[in-house]
Amino acid sequence: MGKYYNLDNMLKPKSVAIIGASQNPEKVGHIIMQNYFNVGYSGDIYPVNASALKDTSILGKKAFKSVLDIKRQIDLAVIAIPAKFVLQALEECGKAKVKSVIIVSSGFSEVGDAALQDKLVEVAKRYELPVLGPNCLGVMDLRSRVDTMFLPTFKIDKPSIGGVSFASQSGAVGSTVLDLISHENFGLSKFISYGNAMVIDEADILNYLGHDPDTKVIIFYIEGVKRGKKFIEVAKEVTKLKPVIIIKGGITPAGSSAAHSHTASLAGSYAAYEAVFEQYGFIQAKSLDEMLYYAKIFVAQPLTTKKRVAIITNGGGVGVLAADSLYLNGLDMAELSDEAKKALRKVMPPIVNMSMPMDMAGDADDKRFGAAIDVLSKDPEVDALMIISLFQTPGADSRVASTIIKYGTEINKPIVVVSPGGSYAEVHNNMMESSGVPVYPSPEDAAKALAALVKYAKYKQRNEKVGKAAKKK
Amino acid sequence: MGKYYNLDNMLKPKSVAIIGASQNPEKVGHIIMQNYFNVGYSGDIYPVNASALKDTSILGKKAFKSVLDIKRQIDLAVIAIPAKFVLQALEECGKAKVKSVIIVSSGFSEVGDAALQDKLVEVAKRYELPVLGPNCLGVMDLRSRVDTMFLPTFKIDKPSIGGVSFASQSGAVGSTVLDLISHENFGLSKFISYGNAMVIDEADILNYLGHDPDTKVIIFYIEGVKRGKKFIEVAKEVTKLKPVIIIKGGITPAGSSAAHSHTASLAGSYAAYEAVFEQYGFIQAKSLDEMLYYAKIFVAQPLTTKKRVAIITNGGGVGVLAADSLYLNGLDMAELSDEAKKALRKVMPPIVNMSMPMDMAGDADDKRFGAAIDVLSKDPEVDALMIISLFQTPGADSRVASTIIKYGTEINKPIVVVSPGGSYAEVHNNMMESSGVPVYPSPEDAAKALAALVKYAKYKQRNEKVGKAAKKK
Repeated sequence: MGKYYNLDNMLKPKSVAIIGASQNPEKVGHIIMQNYFNVGYSGDIYPVNASALKDTSILGKKAFKSVLDIKRQIDLAVIAIPAKFVLQALEECGKAKVKSVIIVSSGFSEVGDAALQDKLVEVAKRYELPVLGPNCLGVMDLRSRVDTMFLPTFKIDKPSIGGVSFASQSGAVGSTVLDLISHENFGLSKFISYGNAMVIDEADILNYLGHDPDTKVIIFYIEGVKRGKKFIEVAKEVTKLKPVIIIKGGITPAGSSAAHSHTASLAGSYAAYEAVFEQYGFIQAKSLDEMLYYAKIFVAQPLTTKKRVAIITNGGGVGVLAADSLYLNGLDMAELSDEAKKALRKVMPPIVNMSMPMDMAGDADDKRFGAAIDVLSKDPEVDALMIISLFQTPGADSRVASTIIKYGTEINKPIVVVSPGGSYAEVHNNMMESSGVPVYPSPEDAAKALAALVKYAKYKQRNEKVGKAAKKK
Repeated sequence: MGKYYNLDNMLKPKSVAIIGASQNPEKVGHIIMQNYFNVGYSGDIYPVNASALKDTSILGKKAFKSVLDIKRQIDLAVIAIPAKFVLQALEECGKAKVKSVIIVSSGFSEVGDAALQDKLVEVAKRYELPVLGPNCLGVMDLRSRVDTMFLPTFKIDKPSIGGVSFASQSGAVGSTVLDLISHENFGLSKFISYGNAMVIDEADILNYLGHDPDTKVIIFYIEGVKRGKKFIEVAKEVTKLKPVIIIKGGITPAGSSAAHSHTASLAGSYAAYEAVFEQYGFIQAKSLDEMLYYAKIFVAQPLTTKKRVAIITNGGGVGVLAADSLYLNGLDMAELSDEAKKALRKVMPPIVNMSMPMDMAGDADDKRFGAAIDVLSKDPEVDALMIISLFQTPGADSRVASTIIKYGTEINKPIVVVSPGGSYAEVHNNMMESSGVPVYPSPEDAAKALAALVKYAKYKQRNEKVGKAAKKK
């Protein structure tokens, strides 16, 4: 065992024991086991139930009274039984040389029973057992087809497979954000709900996801940090490798006391956390929406340290709001080169002014959008593009969306699209987002995301330089 | 003609002439005329087209060469012809004693042709003609079935009839927000797109909507204000009568110059506007989302000048974020009375802690939600409720939504619901919103809306007191 727990056995297990598996479809253990079938898990599954008889079978699999009776290598045991039975089950996992354990059961330090939780920790340490939880939803890995969530699947839209991994101390935030990820049309790599962080904590998870090749962007909901120093040590390394977006619950006196009764976290002072986040290159989100808005630009768009943004729009008023939003988020309005202006003059109707934001008028169609994006993508005076496509206007249709996708996935400058609206707009927004073009409901949201991208790019560049300078010495 | 233009003839016309009506379905005049049929307008419609022959009919109605040929009372003429022909058409409207005119055509001061626009103003003044526009979308009134918009209707979700009226200087912001209103499930009374504000301006519109009995809440997108003093004079009166939510385009140097080329507005300094908004009780929104989030709480929920908010949740983590959001928006967390605690203790399972935010656990169902809301609605220590209902959890379903609707529309304290999520959540959010319960995607958004409500309630109370004191003297 190294400095940090490796979570491979938990996220890519070849064999799983479900302790608390049951024939009763209302039991958590039943739902978890059913989930393994539903997602097409291809490893071995062993249901464990203390009342199992010799010939009991659960969901078609032979059931065992104890994990000790299985007599095969178990990569992961999921414990889903009442709190008072968990200690014995964990002890048996240790004896059976189970490689990793997830305790989804609640009823420990979060309800004031720190003593019981301390006993679990003692067992885990004795057997060197990586244990996730308790009081958590467990994990989800869409590639390895592992899903320990015990929530009704019809209530949560399943995300597609992608590059964002998400760790959450809170199970409710976890399931809600999973649902939102699919709504925002970006793909998930891994989901880790870690609850009370009794053994495996934030530092372990950040370290694991930081080195996971399938994870391009990390999003993190935390209430408190157990090992502050270790967490910072990991963060220092990981934020240089990939963007880590963080949302901290309990940043105020009111929230902090709420966090304490939720996951027994000592939330600490906001100022202290914010200073740490800033210093170590975290991207701090102030709301769940913001967290998702940041994730979708980082996972799909290139970084830029420069901040001259060109705005094109098919609606003047939203262009005005966009100009405001650049300024308020510390970004600059691009000034087009003479060459770009000349090229645009040739393709735009006379009514279109070459100044930024460029209002291409309400009848702007895919040709006008395409020509503008093409010219701006080549203009050395432009670092990033904000494309406002109001699908309520006469010229905007699926060809405009296709054109934006074509350029948005080809050119080497970050692109954000602003497209507020109802059902017609939403169809096209889904289309663009599924192809990796981040779409925002307002210029303000898009500008915030761009500003976060530029800020992180600068942090990364600064630290790469420091790294190189250090090497030279 | 009084101090301000009355817009009744424009919004509730008994007869309409459409100048520029055409047999060609791609012409704006055709679309507008078709719209009148589509929305079930019951007054008289007269198509006017300069190339009309004696027996020309357009969409089944006899066409006229000029508005002068109609020889009947025309309450409203909509002018939708190229800019260069507008002057003559307006002159003819004056001669024909048309009662009001909307010019949707563009190509005037917004493209630098102030001279042509000045000539229109001269004609309008000479005939005392209330003229809306030019360079606008016109008006929509769902009750009187008037709709002069020339946008493709399949692209814009139609709002239901309700208490919010919306005025927009920008047509694009106008049509986008209309689409969003329906998405946010609150009802519209009137929409007024006023473009260059050549004759009828912000002050006239604010005055009209302020005294319109069907309008409960006003939302306003402005870029510049023509008659600052008059606008303030009207605002002073109207903001005491009903909430006026305002979003100002061009609040920064970048945005201000964009606004100038958009509607030829002199946007003025942000500080100056903000001071005015603050002093005269406007509710200032910083983004389109925020504007809609404010509208939906004001149109459906009672005011409160007190700010002790009770939070109940079926997910601990989102409760923590909610506690933070209260603090960050200047609201207080309610402390329940002993009586309330006792009553709740009887109905809640032992795991539920009576402290705020009250985490009712992931299996909270309609009974638990109902009991909690019932107790809190009666507790004198609670001024407002934030209900977090995560529909991803096992206990939350349509019965929870129904329960929230029942209380949300009955009790005399403002209620905001937080329900982030995908398709399952959305179905229930639509259900709640259609019944007047405002639903928000994050605690941050809900807290902002509540804070705006409290702030406005205090403004109103302060000014009512001042009013009463003045009367006593």
